[in-house]
Amino acid sequence: MAAFVWTGLVTLLALFVYFWTIGQVSRARTRHGVEAPSTDGPPAFQRVLRVQVNTLEQIVLFLPGLWLFANIWGDHQAALIGLAWPIGRVLYAVTYYADAKKRAAGFGLALFGTSVLLVGSLIGLVRYLLGI
Amino acid sequence: MAAFVWTGLVTLLALFVYFWTIGQVSRARTRHGVEAPSTDGPPAFQRVLRVQVNTLEQIVLFLPGLWLFANIWGDHQAALIGLAWPIGRVLYAVTYYADAKKRAAGFGLALFGTSVLLVGSLIGLVRYLLGI
Amino acid sequence: MAAFVWTGLVTLLALFVYFWTIGQVSRARTRHGVEAPSTDGPPAFQRVLRVQVNTLEQIVLFLPGLWLFANIWGDHQAALIGLAWPIGRVLYAVTYYADAKKRAAGFGLALFGTSVLLVGSLIGLVRYLLGI
Repeated sequence: MAAFVWTGLVTLLALFVYFWTIGQVSRARTRHGVEAPSTDGPPAFQRVLRVQVNTLEQIVLFLPGLWLFANIWGDHQAALIGLAWPIGRVLYAVTYYADAKKRAAGFGLALFGTSVLLVGSLIGLVRYLLGI
Repeated sequence: MAAFVWTGLVTLLALFVYFWTIGQVSRARTRHGVEAPSTDGPPAFQRVLRVQVNTLEQIVLFLPGLWLFANIWGDHQAALIGLAWPIGRVLYAVTYYADAKKRAAGFGLALFGTSVLLVGSLIGLVRYLLGI
Repeated sequence: MAAFVWTGLVTLLALFVYFWTIGQVSRARTRHGVEAPSTDGPPAFQRVLRVQVNTLEQIVLFLPGLWLFANIWGDHQAALIGLAWPIGRVLYAVTYYADAKKRAAGFGLALFGTSVLLVGSLIGLVRYLLGI
């Protein structure tokens, strides 16, 4: 594990950001009086819920990409690129909570990080196969 | 893999619990006549659906925490703490199916396991960095 | 990582298929005029959304199974069985987009792959424990 300390820390950071979006839904349920199992509520509640669902959708893409990249290109490289994800997702959440139309920048930053990790991993694996 | 047999078994157990919650949605679709792609239905159907969605949300937090912890603190330690998750999630599902208000105990037990794994991993990684 | 090149490639292929289902939701939002945070829309939109949500639900089951199996039984074996997942999920998506009633074949193919990986991993771990 010593070989992947920074990738491990970025993983935990991403999980804490994701966990925070879940906690926001609990708080929004109370604030807007939306009792489980219902997910119907005013737009302000829908935005909080969509942030959480979207963060779930994206972390499933991010974490495997991060770890593939770390195993191929190294711990520091993966962690540095991977940092774009938690930063982007916090920006995404905060802007989306205020106004659904402003969510693009944070979404794009996180997705950029994920894309570099996935495409970089693909390049690394193909290089292995070709022996170059 | 021999070094992580118990963590592997707890992973499979968690996946089987999650798989079971998916199967319950299929059965509830038939029982309540909710045809795909619709997810509208009576509260009894909504509860079965929310159990599945919530179990998905939580397993994404649990599995990375479990494996980080196992790599840092050892197989037996991770597996023992990790057992709280499948036990808690079965309790959560069964109580939520009956009454949304009774879901807190199972939810809390599983989340307690996940929290110990995540915070324990964080402590382990920081110790690596500080060399202690 | 050299030991798991093919499992890594199947992982990336699965993630790209999943990513494609997310992109289809964005396009369907535009086509059907469903603005975030709303997820209400005509059945054609609901089908695109359900394909994405279902693919998310299933990839969470598939990837841990794939990697457990690869570590127990080997890279080539896991990758070959794992290929059923991206193939099955593309078939599932394309048929579900056209008609919800036709989604069973692709769903079944992908789930068959996942089941072989999970049950095969369980058998492998139990064999370790029994020392056979």
